[in-house]
Amino acid sequence: MNLLIKNVTLLSMKEGQPILENTNIYIENDTITQIGEIKPDIKLDRVVDGAKKIAMPGLINAHTHLGMSLFRNYANDVPLFDWLTKYIWPLEAKLTAEDVYWGSLLSMIEMIYSGTTAFCDMYFFMDEVARAAEEIGLRGVLTRGIIEEEDPERNKEKLKDTRKLYENWNGKAEGRIKVMVGPHAPYTCGPSYLKEIVELAKELNTGLHIHVSETKKEVEESFEKYGKSPVKHLKDIGVFNVPTVAAHCVHVSDEDIEILKEMKVSPVYNPTSNAKLASGFAPVDKMLKQGIIVALGTDGPASNNNLNIFEEIHFAATVNKALNYDALSVPALEALKMATINGAKALLWDKEIGSIEVGKKADIILIDIDKPHLYPHHDPISALAYSVQASDMDTVIINGKIIMEKREIKTVDVEKVMYTVEERAKELIGRK
Amino acid sequence: MNLLIKNVTLLSMKEGQPILENTNIYIENDTITQIGEIKPDIKLDRVVDGAKKIAMPGLINAHTHLGMSLFRNYANDVPLFDWLTKYIWPLEAKLTAEDVYWGSLLSMIEMIYSGTTAFCDMYFFMDEVARAAEEIGLRGVLTRGIIEEEDPERNKEKLKDTRKLYENWNGKAEGRIKVMVGPHAPYTCGPSYLKEIVELAKELNTGLHIHVSETKKEVEESFEKYGKSPVKHLKDIGVFNVPTVAAHCVHVSDEDIEILKEMKVSPVYNPTSNAKLASGFAPVDKMLKQGIIVALGTDGPASNNNLNIFEEIHFAATVNKALNYDALSVPALEALKMATINGAKALLWDKEIGSIEVGKKADIILIDIDKPHLYPHHDPISALAYSVQASDMDTVIINGKIIMEKREIKTVDVEKVMYTVEERAKELIGRK
Repeated sequence: MNLLIKNVTLLSMKEGQPILENTNIYIENDTITQIGEIKPDIKLDRVVDGAKKIAMPGLINAHTHLGMSLFRNYANDVPLFDWLTKYIWPLEAKLTAEDVYWGSLLSMIEMIYSGTTAFCDMYFFMDEVARAAEEIGLRGVLTRGIIEEEDPERNKEKLKDTRKLYENWNGKAEGRIKVMVGPHAPYTCGPSYLKEIVELAKELNTGLHIHVSETKKEVEESFEKYGKSPVKHLKDIGVFNVPTVAAHCVHVSDEDIEILKEMKVSPVYNPTSNAKLASGFAPVDKMLKQGIIVALGTDGPASNNNLNIFEEIHFAATVNKALNYDALSVPALEALKMATINGAKALLWDKEIGSIEVGKKADIILIDIDKPHLYPHHDPISALAYSVQASDMDTVIINGKIIMEKREIKTVDVEKVMYTVEERAKELIGRK
Repeated sequence: MNLLIKNVTLLSMKEGQPILENTNIYIENDTITQIGEIKPDIKLDRVVDGAKKIAMPGLINAHTHLGMSLFRNYANDVPLFDWLTKYIWPLEAKLTAEDVYWGSLLSMIEMIYSGTTAFCDMYFFMDEVARAAEEIGLRGVLTRGIIEEEDPERNKEKLKDTRKLYENWNGKAEGRIKVMVGPHAPYTCGPSYLKEIVELAKELNTGLHIHVSETKKEVEESFEKYGKSPVKHLKDIGVFNVPTVAAHCVHVSDEDIEILKEMKVSPVYNPTSNAKLASGFAPVDKMLKQGIIVALGTDGPASNNNLNIFEEIHFAATVNKALNYDALSVPALEALKMATINGAKALLWDKEIGSIEVGKKADIILIDIDKPHLYPHHDPISALAYSVQASDMDTVIINGKIIMEKREIKTVDVEKVMYTVEERAKELIGRK
């Protein structure tokens, strides 16, 4: 399909490019081929009017657990340990592949409604997540979460699973799906198992997605066990020799930050989840000032409790100012970068997505600025970082395909997914 | 009008009352007269279907400057001093009564769309704010912001203004408007002027709305000038002898908190604004645990940059958990209380609003829970505190009147207000 977006306000997120007013974007099949004045002899299947809309790159949710939407608002305001042991883990033990399919599909619907066009997921039954992403039209990195068990056969199986997932899905769905390896955390995978996982990543020539230094407790225990921080431990094992997406990095020292920078690790900042679970605040201002590529994530919908990246942008651009007593900490554009081009870099996808440029894939969102809370139209960048709501997303284009238009999702039956998740979630609680 | 809301999920916010499922609310004119099973012989003008909706008391924004919507996203990510002196104050100096009318009306539209039914405003040209509130149907406390000047005649005029505002508007618009006195802050009004303002409040038998301890600098300067904190200073002058709405209270000591408790002052927590302006984090968990009635506010739309109370609820219920390393800090219900019954108490309106009870005025919002980000429907209280978005507001009833239904505002022409504000805001910047 050839698609023209006309008369739009463009925030391309291309380094150094200012806002372009009343411009045009021409897309041939999955690729952006012209921006600005469009050559006269183009083929046109569809024209989308961009008046009173901002076009920006689709948002990238660089750390989540999509299947957990089934547990959204199931148990909250209980201490983390009780939440996991009494509520979440007993339910997760009962999950089937079908549950994960429907839960992930619901999460994907929410992501599209709120402007997210690519994600990085860690969960299990990942074939189902792939199936859902293929169907709805999202772009995503899939990682099968690996926790080391006592039985070495089970551990081998998990590596096999990952390899199979890679073989079945990497590069599939018109190139919208990537597979990385997903060791859960340095405290749930021992050093030698981690090394095996790293070898697998090298062999598959892919990246690695892991939780790092999410809580104080984790860091203390790492010092007790290994005499060093989780970041230093992972470096010494060789984990950071493959491109690493490091979720959280809340409790990182200056030395840890040096390592993250040196090893080109991409931390993912999940501010709402880190706050809600009482984990703390990642030193994101410091990391950004060091030139580290920090991406943005929501974490799973049961510890947030939504998948609204604009809420994470607001959080990033406001809370850090108070934490640092500095009104210039994490400026609006920096927060928007975390949610777009930085996410693309973290997911090793920045040659194709993360900004709106000729030659890149067309992952574009159109934001309706004809809303009371967005008037007057002074500075679009401020408006995006501080005022825009998820519900302002009007149109979502992924890989050149219109997935949502005027808030109508075109690829799946939203009512059916909501109904099915409600039934399954209720039944799951009583399930034996 | 007699109105029945049927088959609704009710979070009444009445102390100790659990969620009621599939219940009914009957409203006669402006008053709630039945809840639960409705007597058979009622008169009915309208029936609103509450299926897949939560009814809760309308939200109360206890501290704002509505006219400032004209400056929304005009200048951001500049230090506070520059923001005020280079951008905001020069524009405010040029504001006309008509500007404030249109800016306030735009803010009111945004508040209704996001579920706010009552507010406490501090600004100037307050007759215009009253006019806008009367027209759109909102409930509000109006306070003419008073800053002491060198010229004693100007200071007398401001007291006269307040008295006239009270005479013209207190109790008007079917009782939806209240007037309080509004000394801006202890650092902009000297002790003797403050005492005069307090005397006026006593004479009018009304409350007082003031900014208190918003920044570190303010507290330091109070110690330099008066040898004590702003809170102690205000107590000693006698300000707290009238019911006081104390916006911010960010930098308050344990001793200050004791005073706020003893004098029954109601602090208003404005977390997004305090963060965005790099002021800091109010010790709201500590104040709540002391039994202090903390209300919730957005502050003005130029330092937030929206009027979405649900965003403040999310902030309150998440950020405090990380600040205190306690997953139980500011639980969901507590955050919702701040936005409803606590706000009503702060504004001396809790006999009439703040909860859904027989005998109270009908200020009720219906939240559409048939949305992907609200599935599955586990715990409604968690969903309201963590997942709900402003755009989930379906119906807004104020004083028994349907002001918004299916997201359509019935009392003003939204398009006209957006258009007019855009024109005025752009013209204002170039205005001589």
